[in-house]
Amino acid sequence: MGGYSPFIFTDNDEFIVIDQRFLPQIKKVKLENLNDTCMAIKDMIVRGAPLIGIVAAFGYYLAIKNAKDLDELNQASLTAYTNLLATRPTAVNLKWAVESQKKLIEQNAFLPVEKIIKKVRANAFGIFEDQKKADYEMAKNALVLFDKKMRILTHCNTGSFATGGIGTALGIIKYAAQQNLVEEVYVDETRPYFQGSRITAFELSKENINYKIVTDSACGILMQKKLIDCIIVGADRIAKNGDVANKVGTYCLAQLAKLHNVKFFVAAPESTIDRSLNNLSDLDIEIRDSSEILNFNGVNLAPDGAKALYFAFDVTPNYLIDSIITEKGIYRPDFEL
Amino acid sequence: MGGYSPFIFTDNDEFIVIDQRFLPQIKKVKLENLNDTCMAIKDMIVRGAPLIGIVAAFGYYLAIKNAKDLDELNQASLTAYTNLLATRPTAVNLKWAVESQKKLIEQNAFLPVEKIIKKVRANAFGIFEDQKKADYEMAKNALVLFDKKMRILTHCNTGSFATGGIGTALGIIKYAAQQNLVEEVYVDETRPYFQGSRITAFELSKENINYKIVTDSACGILMQKKLIDCIIVGADRIAKNGDVANKVGTYCLAQLAKLHNVKFFVAAPESTIDRSLNNLSDLDIEIRDSSEILNFNGVNLAPDGAKALYFAFDVTPNYLIDSIITEKGIYRPDFEL
Repeated sequence: MGGYSPFIFTDNDEFIVIDQRFLPQIKKVKLENLNDTCMAIKDMIVRGAPLIGIVAAFGYYLAIKNAKDLDELNQASLTAYTNLLATRPTAVNLKWAVESQKKLIEQNAFLPVEKIIKKVRANAFGIFEDQKKADYEMAKNALVLFDKKMRILTHCNTGSFATGGIGTALGIIKYAAQQNLVEEVYVDETRPYFQGSRITAFELSKENINYKIVTDSACGILMQKKLIDCIIVGADRIAKNGDVANKVGTYCLAQLAKLHNVKFFVAAPESTIDRSLNNLSDLDIEIRDSSEILNFNGVNLAPDGAKALYFAFDVTPNYLIDSIITEKGIYRPDFEL
Repeated sequence: MGGYSPFIFTDNDEFIVIDQRFLPQIKKVKLENLNDTCMAIKDMIVRGAPLIGIVAAFGYYLAIKNAKDLDELNQASLTAYTNLLATRPTAVNLKWAVESQKKLIEQNAFLPVEKIIKKVRANAFGIFEDQKKADYEMAKNALVLFDKKMRILTHCNTGSFATGGIGTALGIIKYAAQQNLVEEVYVDETRPYFQGSRITAFELSKENINYKIVTDSACGILMQKKLIDCIIVGADRIAKNGDVANKVGTYCLAQLAKLHNVKFFVAAPESTIDRSLNNLSDLDIEIRDSSEILNFNGVNLAPDGAKALYFAFDVTPNYLIDSIITEKGIYRPDFEL
């Protein structure tokens, strides 16, 4: 069961990521420092909530690795923390990862600086390894939801390019397919970035899993025609009550699933659960630049001077969700996370 | 209030259409004969249910114009009828227009052939003129639905490039904007052909009407955030009970509108109503070629060899529709058309 590594971090600290905006074409980008890392996250060279956290953790290390004393370390740490947090507001794994690095530095302030720096480097690898393990655990936990060969719709990319492991929602699909429990996967395009048709379709084709790409707006007719048994998506943030923020379009899928009696599952690592929030009704949704809707790889999709509005995420309220799958197990309504 | 002619049919029978696949870039295509016309409809060089009907009526004329006697005329008429009908199965205006030409020939069989041919030519222009008038009547009829400055979402293109007149749904929006009854128009992209972001946005910008392009999957969050007062769409076929077949995605919009208490209006000429069908529950939905999803203007949107499924339309059941607006007036539930 393949993993397609979205990045490499070498023994001599070379940090190379695949620019996901061009997938399935492989273009590599070298991240030399904190600024490069922030840019890569902000411009969606890397995306996917868990992967953003992992990349941020490595970027944090790059930001502090040359500190000569504790003052310099603390200064660099604060800059890394602030700048990384500012890149993408919705994905809580990012916050979780940079806080983990910040705390590690604070808690080890009594150690020699070079030892703290080593710990920060190890922590980045630790976060990465933990995610890979979490993906497998999630996939195993989810098997109980497959009572037959399922026809599954999935949104966005939640595979190796989103986590570095086998993936969250897509990891579950890959694992279930190995057990012969997947009949067909409907991959919606996920406009505006086409993460579904470009990246998810790429991963599924490498696994030889049956899939068909559909436009985002086809979800209604697919469910009307009873072609879908369940929907599995990832998450960028989950509140204590089970409200889920995820890639824009998720909410439409969840409402249509409810109307058509189609099961709606969310898969995410525990680090996606933001227990500081009781619900997501007041979540500030990231509004990204119009150009991300109006152009694709240099091709204009609209008249010159056109205006657009791009909410990157939406919130799916808990009552539309049948199960939330994490590496710890399966949460069911009423969710108490 | 502008009209942007999607075609010209000259005094000496030159038939030139704008290739709508490249809009807002203007590329013209000359249709010399029946085959060219069929290809233009099939390959979506022209689209929009009313426009397809008009183009088919002119293509019908091209097909029969060189007939020397009644036998040749009848033979050419049968070929035109069969080939034109086979191009697009869902748009009933096409059927209506070619049947109108066929009947005209049959009913005037007693006349000299050249006179019948003249009548067929005049009938094509008549269908075109009637549509332009119908667009205006629809727009006037719809004004009663505007009880304030409205924030409207529209799907696909239903403007001049869909009818040759001011448009159906988009004609209503243009006319209402002239009366200062439009606050903002949300234009969804309408994948896979981007008729919204390419064509509707183009028409709105020419009219100086406020608009914003959004992805198709943003409809949920826009309604959650109470940014939409009503949705107005066109139709490709309407059954007697008010069921509406329209561009894929319409059904999702209608369901979400119902859930969010957003009014859902359909605008179409009477020729779109197929009174031979009581409802659309068994309508055969046109499945178009995968390539229309996987490529856009030569740019690959998915991995090589990717598979896709493209239902071009969906059916919105009558109970989700608040009003159907035609040139005759406004139909309300329970619809009896």
